[in-house]
Amino acid sequence: MNNKTDSREKMVEAASKLFQLKGYHATGLNEILKESYAPKGSLYYYFPNGKEELALAAIELAGGIIQNKIKVSLSKYTNPSRAIQNVISDMKTALDEEGELQNISISLLALETYLSSETLREACNRSFEDLENIYAQKLIENGVPLEIAQDLGMVIQAMIEGAITISITKKDTAPLSAVAKQIDVLIRQYYSA
Amino acid sequence: MNNKTDSREKMVEAASKLFQLKGYHATGLNEILKESYAPKGSLYYYFPNGKEELALAAIELAGGIIQNKIKVSLSKYTNPSRAIQNVISDMKTALDEEGELQNISISLLALETYLSSETLREACNRSFEDLENIYAQKLIENGVPLEIAQDLGMVIQAMIEGAITISITKKDTAPLSAVAKQIDVLIRQYYSA
Repeated sequence: MNNKTDSREKMVEAASKLFQLKGYHATGLNEILKESYAPKGSLYYYFPNGKEELALAAIELAGGIIQNKIKVSLSKYTNPSRAIQNVISDMKTALDEEGELQNISISLLALETYLSSETLREACNRSFEDLENIYAQKLIENGVPLEIAQDLGMVIQAMIEGAITISITKKDTAPLSAVAKQIDVLIRQYYSA
Repeated sequence: MNNKTDSREKMVEAASKLFQLKGYHATGLNEILKESYAPKGSLYYYFPNGKEELALAAIELAGGIIQNKIKVSLSKYTNPSRAIQNVISDMKTALDEEGELQNISISLLALETYLSSETLREACNRSFEDLENIYAQKLIENGVPLEIAQDLGMVIQAMIEGAITISITKKDTAPLSAVAKQIDVLIRQYYSA
């Protein structure tokens, strides 16, 4: 990796971290520069359209990391229900250890930007859809019919997203455990190992 | 209602609206004063501890309104599954009509404040717990055993909260429809009319 790429990447990483933890509006560009040790001029060099353009890259970075973590957790089991239990179990461990949502959920960014930026709303939407599709794909691979799998993928993603928001607010991962149990019930309608 | 109460109430209403739509950090106190037509001095008169104290009142106001709307929707049907379908149907109508989350969900406020303010995190947590309990209560009234009802109340609340976040990001209430269908499946494990 050359210095140029390095500097851009560090900036996006810092932005992604701060936007996810503090929020898009609460994070100033100076803070991102400070966190990334990037020279002041480089921000508008790499992101001539400013904060929104940087946020787009940050959402894509976070979305990709979240996706990859879920794919790795899912791949540990063939049985789709057991695989999703494993995803949730890994999320619970991450929440318990870190107590914050970096690279676990982009719900904060979605809720902060859906009214103010179409570009960022669409980026968040793509990230949510990717996760729905990953869950649906796991069900399809195990013989669940396409339409049912797509519907269930959407529901599983909503259950996990909601449980993350409530768990972090509660400082207790009981909602994630509770949805894990009921996701098993939902999958068993269409699949039993 | 006397003028004093009126002025305080208008300020909390304006704060609640702006915090829910723009977010806690993106909303300045001057904006709240402007929106509520309140005299400048009245902010620190009613809320000597400033923005956080105002946000606490705003979260409690929004939480109360959300709760009441859900209670009204639930009360239209005895059958708990049908009653919750009605809650979701009313939420879909509100989202379709307004395209924004005022008095539908406080997830944005919860995600913005869980790391920065214990007072506001606890207020959001109380609001989430109230909703869980409302759903659990509806199940208990219909003969679902206490512990199962509490667990399912938590899951139903997570499903709806997640589906709201994803629906608003998608500009499409399909996730709310999908969770409604599966909530029926979950309730039928323990209750059939």
